Amino acid sequence: MQTDDFHVFDTTLRDGAQREGISYSVADKLAVARLLDQVGVGFVEGGWPGALPKDTEFFARAAAGELTMRHATLVAFGATRKAGVRVADDPQVRALLDAQASVVTLVAKSDLRHVERALRTTPEENLAMVHETVAFLREHGRRVFVDCEHFFDGYRYDHDYGIRVLDAAAAAGADVGVLCDTNGGMLPMAVHDVVSDVVQRSGIRLGIHTQDDTGCAVANTLAAVDAGATHVQGTANGYGERAGNANIFSVLGGLVTKMGRDVLPDGCLTEMVRVAHAIAEIANLAPDTHAPYVGAAAFAHKAGLHASAIKVDPELYNHLDPQIVGNDQRILVTEMAGRASVELKSAELGVDVTGRPDVVGSVVEHVKEREAAGWSYEAADASFELLLRDTLDGVQASAPFDVESYRVIIDRREDDALVSEATVKLRAGGRRVISTEEGNGPVNALDRALRKALEHAYPQLAKMELTDYKVRIMAGRAGTDAVTRVLIETSDHEREWSTVGVHANVIEASWLALHDAVRFGLLKTATPDLPTS
Amino acid sequence: MQTDDFHVFDTTLRDGAQREGISYSVADKLAVARLLDQVGVGFVEGGWPGALPKDTEFFARAAAGELTMRHATLVAFGATRKAGVRVADDPQVRALLDAQASVVTLVAKSDLRHVERALRTTPEENLAMVHETVAFLREHGRRVFVDCEHFFDGYRYDHDYGIRVLDAAAAAGADVGVLCDTNGGMLPMAVHDVVSDVVQRSGIRLGIHTQDDTGCAVANTLAAVDAGATHVQGTANGYGERAGNANIFSVLGGLVTKMGRDVLPDGCLTEMVRVAHAIAEIANLAPDTHAPYVGAAAFAHKAGLHASAIKVDPELYNHLDPQIVGNDQRILVTEMAGRASVELKSAELGVDVTGRPDVVGSVVEHVKEREAAGWSYEAADASFELLLRDTLDGVQASAPFDVESYRVIIDRREDDALVSEATVKLRAGGRRVISTEEGNGPVNALDRALRKALEHAYPQLAKMELTDYKVRIMAGRAGTDAVTRVLIETSDHEREWSTVGVHANVIEASWLALHDAVRFGLLKTATPDLPTS
Repeated sequence: MQTDDFHVFDTTLRDGAQREGISYSVADKLAVARLLDQVGVGFVEGGWPGALPKDTEFFARAAAGELTMRHATLVAFGATRKAGVRVADDPQVRALLDAQASVVTLVAKSDLRHVERALRTTPEENLAMVHETVAFLREHGRRVFVDCEHFFDGYRYDHDYGIRVLDAAAAAGADVGVLCDTNGGMLPMAVHDVVSDVVQRSGIRLGIHTQDDTGCAVANTLAAVDAGATHVQGTANGYGERAGNANIFSVLGGLVTKMGRDVLPDGCLTEMVRVAHAIAEIANLAPDTHAPYVGAAAFAHKAGLHASAIKVDPELYNHLDPQIVGNDQRILVTEMAGRASVELKSAELGVDVTGRPDVVGSVVEHVKEREAAGWSYEAADASFELLLRDTLDGVQASAPFDVESYRVIIDRREDDALVSEATVKLRAGGRRVISTEEGNGPVNALDRALRKALEHAYPQLAKMELTDYKVRIMAGRAGTDAVTRVLIETSDHEREWSTVGVHANVIEASWLALHDAVRFGLLKTATPDLPTS
Repeated sequence: MQTDDFHVFDTTLRDGAQREGISYSVADKLAVARLLDQVGVGFVEGGWPGALPKDTEFFARAAAGELTMRHATLVAFGATRKAGVRVADDPQVRALLDAQASVVTLVAKSDLRHVERALRTTPEENLAMVHETVAFLREHGRRVFVDCEHFFDGYRYDHDYGIRVLDAAAAAGADVGVLCDTNGGMLPMAVHDVVSDVVQRSGIRLGIHTQDDTGCAVANTLAAVDAGATHVQGTANGYGERAGNANIFSVLGGLVTKMGRDVLPDGCLTEMVRVAHAIAEIANLAPDTHAPYVGAAAFAHKAGLHASAIKVDPELYNHLDPQIVGNDQRILVTEMAGRASVELKSAELGVDVTGRPDVVGSVVEHVKEREAAGWSYEAADASFELLLRDTLDGVQASAPFDVESYRVIIDRREDDALVSEATVKLRAGGRRVISTEEGNGPVNALDRALRKALEHAYPQLAKMELTDYKVRIMAGRAGTDAVTRVLIETSDHEREWSTVGVHANVIEASWLALHDAVRFGLLKTATPDLPTS
């Protein structure tokens, strides 16, 4: 249920964008905002119009109709007016109005030392800046939240000045005073103490904004709620400067499933996994497989001990039913997992290995050997399924073509033109085929040449495309002599599957993963009645 | 200061090894144990001898003199005896003695439901198993800690049974009863309440072991200490099953720098960054750049706002002096950072740009453009320095050779032999050179061909070698058509430097990074008086 009684406020697009390595386009920002709305947050802080051209454009396009949100209200971020300037004359404040967002978050100094040493003004002028800017925005019909920067450090230095800032904001009509642990140095016990004190001494509704510099951002947020805060700020996947912000998915998981706070619209909590992964993709960061609640491994059990027990009694080994947050109980196939894991994984894939202890034993051995050489089946279910089926049916069953050789040439010529070309020679559908294709890189050329060589025999390949390609160098110290692991994701627009290839040579590793991807695709289209992975 | 009053107990090699993707060799385990000792932990849990052959070998080699630790005591992990078996006849318990570790951690069931449904025995037999196994190990001179598995879930189900397990352990001579949040579902407020209650109701010294399934493992550990626990368990970088264990570096950072607990030997805290990175390398996982305290970005400021202020007053913007934990204040060069950042970064690199606003402006523009195209200078200081020097001196200054063309061929022949060959044509030292080399992959072949072509003009290249090669595909949805970013680390055994290359073609991206790596190496050896980055 979503009401104004509790605010879930997302700042992925503003504070979260400070994370090293993140650089959103305006289209990215619009896509992220839509995803955040799908997970049911109440407020999406979109950026700082006026200060960053991309953010100005984002608000303009959002206002022009490119962003429709079902649950969330769009928020513009800005600062209080400059010292010694009339608020109506401050272009930064005017840009906030121009952004046309109905809610504005204003950042205000609440640590005396920052007022004096960074802002270089008097404590009274800072209070006037807060009061006048809030009042100005209220006059123009905006709802105003005030982020009290460095509140906790300021509180330690002077117990009263931050309260005066909160009072100035409240008096001018601000709705929420957000206590920010800007430097991220707090622990939950202390956050609880400070928030409990401030709740008593100030009249304004309190929010909490934490950074993860002590590894306690989520706990600090939950401690503040426990002490009376009713507005939480966080970012998708905890993205943010330094150690990051409070991960909003972990905060939501804790609030809803552990603290029993019904803060999301119905049906939104199960969107967390999908949204977390989609935002990682837009941010172009690998999703954290070990993230609480939403990570691919968040409910995965590796140990043989647990994997066998979990078959009997799953609720004894999970802190939560993974489906509540849209996750799955994934069982990893690794050297530590025994036969029980392979049996369970096989059942997940819809492959019946009951009564075939020889097959299970052989697969366990094969996986152990391969993983010792750098392979990983954890993120490559399709390669695992091929291994399983090859073992079950005999190798011929799922190799519907026979490759003779391939060659890849990358040429940077004197005129600076760069050409990638691949040739594949193979037998399929009773014919020998030689096919040569160019691509915008060697793997692309190889993928095209392989599929072109097969298309007369298997026209269904036309529907398939590579959707992701990941390269990992294993055993870092050996430089380019190390082993390369390639993970490929393929889609035929109905299902997606992952395959793996490992080799010292990145091209051969890619080839092995491509080969599995095509084999798996052909296997599935040839046997449409099989359950998919 | 390290005393027995407070235990810092590391389980990276036992519970942490359950993390997906980790597979240590015995040599790896020995190296990790030495690193943990350097950071000053009191106990290193090495594994489960008897259950895992690698762990048995690890303890044998450690006992044979391959592991000497200055601060830490080695600990063997095992389970209480089987139900219905005499303890002296249980081979798993005997293997614990054979491991010759002076301390043993025993895992015991402390949740009634696990006793009944997983162990399938009676509550009384489980207590007897705990008592007899502890007593047996004590008789053989071992110090014993008891890990009470699923303690918190068990406490919620039945407030008393866990206390009876602790009492049984204490009565038999165990030193510590460790309360384990095995499923990881706890929040700090509840941990504080439970530990406070158990401290009052049990006579044994208490420890805490948490998992990060709510994102609160570190906070839960610190809350338990606040409530009276004097033994904390964690793992390097938080490695562990599912969402991982409590990150021991964050726990130590919190205990020492935030809670004022002097739990480490003198001089050890500054080893955290080095040890955290070295263990990541051994585990073959990318170090988390955003990890609290130890991440490369843990003290890095991206925003232009902060970067300019931080020049004036660093203590206002850091929760901690980074040097206390062995970290640095790193300044990121990104589109959001303004001129102040480039000036500061230049000063770090020892390049004087004072009085050259034209250079600073031009570099800022260039970086913005490049980063919009997928480049990143954050992890490529050498490429940034080349950009800076090229701008400062004019392009000719740092390009001591002139490449005409290159070609790479990867051939998988009919006999399955795989050949990678590269040809480079360039001018250097007044001569035109054509050089062809083979390598075990295309980048290796290209690296060899480039350096062979240059060796007559620059013999100092013989000392340089690639030490790491990372590939990142940018813009995930476009598959192999996406842009590839390559980061290369090079060493001449005196210094290391990082360079970046970006292109749709992985070979060209690698070439660009290789080219920068060689240019930078030649620049540094040609001008030995320059400070290094």
